[in-house]
Amino acid sequence: MEFADRQPIRISDVHDEGYAPGRYFARGWVKTHRRSKNVAFIELTDGTSVKGLQLVINPSLSSYLVAEAQIGTGAAIEVSGQLVPSPAKGQKFEFQVEEFSLVGSCDPETYPLQKKGHTLEFLREQLHLRPRSNTLGAVFRIRSAASFAVHKFFRDRNFIWVHTPIITTSDCEGAGEMFRVTTLDLSNPPRDDKGHIDFSQDFFKDEASLTVSGQLEAEIFALSHMNCYTFGPTFRSENSNTSRHLSEFWMIEPEMAFCDLRGDMKVAEDFVKEVVRSVLQECAADLEFLHAREWVEADTAKVLEQVSETRYGVMTYDEVINELQKSGRKFEYEPHWGADLQAEHERFITDEVVKGPTFVINYPKEIKAFYMRLNEDEKTVAAMDLLVPRLGEIIGGSQREEREAVLRSKIEANGMPPELYWWYLELRKFGGVPHAGFGLGFERLLMYLTGIQNIRDVIPFPRHPGYAKF
Amino acid sequence: MEFADRQPIRISDVHDEGYAPGRYFARGWVKTHRRSKNVAFIELTDGTSVKGLQLVINPSLSSYLVAEAQIGTGAAIEVSGQLVPSPAKGQKFEFQVEEFSLVGSCDPETYPLQKKGHTLEFLREQLHLRPRSNTLGAVFRIRSAASFAVHKFFRDRNFIWVHTPIITTSDCEGAGEMFRVTTLDLSNPPRDDKGHIDFSQDFFKDEASLTVSGQLEAEIFALSHMNCYTFGPTFRSENSNTSRHLSEFWMIEPEMAFCDLRGDMKVAEDFVKEVVRSVLQECAADLEFLHAREWVEADTAKVLEQVSETRYGVMTYDEVINELQKSGRKFEYEPHWGADLQAEHERFITDEVVKGPTFVINYPKEIKAFYMRLNEDEKTVAAMDLLVPRLGEIIGGSQREEREAVLRSKIEANGMPPELYWWYLELRKFGGVPHAGFGLGFERLLMYLTGIQNIRDVIPFPRHPGYAKF
Repeated sequence: MEFADRQPIRISDVHDEGYAPGRYFARGWVKTHRRSKNVAFIELTDGTSVKGLQLVINPSLSSYLVAEAQIGTGAAIEVSGQLVPSPAKGQKFEFQVEEFSLVGSCDPETYPLQKKGHTLEFLREQLHLRPRSNTLGAVFRIRSAASFAVHKFFRDRNFIWVHTPIITTSDCEGAGEMFRVTTLDLSNPPRDDKGHIDFSQDFFKDEASLTVSGQLEAEIFALSHMNCYTFGPTFRSENSNTSRHLSEFWMIEPEMAFCDLRGDMKVAEDFVKEVVRSVLQECAADLEFLHAREWVEADTAKVLEQVSETRYGVMTYDEVINELQKSGRKFEYEPHWGADLQAEHERFITDEVVKGPTFVINYPKEIKAFYMRLNEDEKTVAAMDLLVPRLGEIIGGSQREEREAVLRSKIEANGMPPELYWWYLELRKFGGVPHAGFGLGFERLLMYLTGIQNIRDVIPFPRHPGYAKF
Repeated sequence: MEFADRQPIRISDVHDEGYAPGRYFARGWVKTHRRSKNVAFIELTDGTSVKGLQLVINPSLSSYLVAEAQIGTGAAIEVSGQLVPSPAKGQKFEFQVEEFSLVGSCDPETYPLQKKGHTLEFLREQLHLRPRSNTLGAVFRIRSAASFAVHKFFRDRNFIWVHTPIITTSDCEGAGEMFRVTTLDLSNPPRDDKGHIDFSQDFFKDEASLTVSGQLEAEIFALSHMNCYTFGPTFRSENSNTSRHLSEFWMIEPEMAFCDLRGDMKVAEDFVKEVVRSVLQECAADLEFLHAREWVEADTAKVLEQVSETRYGVMTYDEVINELQKSGRKFEYEPHWGADLQAEHERFITDEVVKGPTFVINYPKEIKAFYMRLNEDEKTVAAMDLLVPRLGEIIGGSQREEREAVLRSKIEANGMPPELYWWYLELRKFGGVPHAGFGLGFERLLMYLTGIQNIRDVIPFPRHPGYAKF
């Protein structure tokens, strides 16, 4: 076998009319195989498209005959033959097989994926096979395309990509629930005089955890390279066993120097629009397939198009509270100034008031993180949440507090030790400038794009309480 | 301040002649500031180039006068004025300031970075400021450019990017030293009847660690989507406090289905060439600056050009051992069949035998990982290491063992429990195909590109024994 010498066709390109009819070589896996007396059909996938390639085979073809019994769903094959316009409906081409070769068989008795559809719950127990299913196959192509769109967006604007640390002895929010990272012998850890665990003998000579955010470290690079972003894994050890939480997820966190809240919103709006637009365009077939699933809300495609095109609204938190209160609407949680917005409030604003994506800005300082810049009113901070129709918050960001004295007093007011944040304070002291940034949970964006309802189905290997398999 | 409305010039574009002379707005940080009676000069950086922009100021300019005392190295400023061809040598343009504004001062008495150069050791204690230095500023621009080149390479070839898990209950090599991830109370962990730590009460209801490689999981996606790659953080808890080891580093691991060792080498060669070529081209000024440092080996640029252009050699491990033995060279470690190649051996091959990058293939099975495909001789495996001049191994890869029975017996021979690898074995059982891949440590590539000698200087936040600060 000399695989390197044979260039197979790419099935998604066939569907996009990238091929002239002619003699080709194809490889991949069998989705379905059925034969009648005079003809056999195989739907072949190479993982590039939700739509397979229809192989048409004369059942008396000897290279097919010898393999026939082993060609179940999931078997790997190689074929040579003619790509010709198809007389059948729903496909432009079919592939008339002249040479057939079985590369890897797949026992139909034990193969967990059969040609009939499986529930997403069932597939979640087969993480090693579920990327082969139509739904997850499409989701992961979209995930990859969206990832690249993220990089391209920032690259086109001269942001540098910064790899912020995964293992850290800092704690971004001062309050996140974090996983401990250790090499201590848990059965017999070293203890100090007082009987406390002696972390000075741990691998990093200190208590170390998995990062909850790269923002603080990203600010370092905004103040050296002007514009930067992170795109990496982050972790939360909250015991949240829901369809919207993961213990390990990917975050995108841009950070811009010489940038205020307005500039921050502009980048966020451009970013969401471009990534959505790019995925709508590049993954049209996959999205069409997913959006037609019974568990996807109607008009999802239309909502996404609106998000990629319309001008986003801006409301202050004050205005939102007013709007909610005067609406006469009965909410489960009564809206009142000083409280966080609930999903029902957010959805009311985007779906019924603004009827489109909306930035809510200037939140009460008490409900936002210590690093957000205090406004003139001294009651609110220069924060922004981007709410999108149906989902609610997709982005959270802010202008950062660049005044050292103000930042220090906020750190103290939060009961955090300023000496732990010495370097973060020094960024303000040495050539500090107004700067801003935001964070976007990549999996939430993917749920929004795909219509997938459970976050565990948009990440290849979900981690959540009780589960870190594969 | 309305930052969003003002588009500053980008200094690296000025140097690349991307600007016509005219009136512009510029912002950034002061690298140097000196004045005489009739003129003041400021070298301004915006983080986009190792070369600053020369600002020329009439010291009687009132907006300058009020700020003058505070304009030390590191201070943040904004200026408006005229970009004009420069009469001075070594720069095409200078910027004649008409309006000056201090945005953030920087106290020269306490600012750790002065205009004179600092050692890389000193800068390592100032992780929050070192990206502002010429050397680290350049390194991190190169890191970002190389990262994008990695994504672009695979994207152009339709590989999907897979986010393999960071937290895992698997162990890729069966023997890696791993960091434990836990939320147990270390002072009083739950124990079972026998007094052992009861990990069923830990967060993931099992012993969890940080990944040492995404390869096994990537194979899942090669067998569903044909070609994929990972690019993410990996971890080793070896107590290696050297200039070549990190506890946290970024790895690139492509994996290709229907691919043998030859195909694997082809992708690896194309990959290294394209990434090197792309960085040579895009980061020419940064590389020129770095390669002229006193700690960089002479001719580094020439070596890189060779790597990006020449055809790579291929030698079997047998041939290498023969060549070493017949060389008459006195090695510190006597080469003999069955032993791993040492750095001195590798360097001899690339620098004196082949005189260029070299794949060494078909290593003895005893010194390679269990998942590598057993060759017909049953003594060697279809492994390949790519050695490059001066550095030695930069890539390690192999064709994977796709025969379930052979794989199972290798797992058992390695003393590993096959039931732990049930899903990895099933990938062979259900439509398994010959497949191959490789791994490249991103930081090693960056050391090779930049000439940087200590791996802690090519990653923003190095982690190593005793150190996980920032």
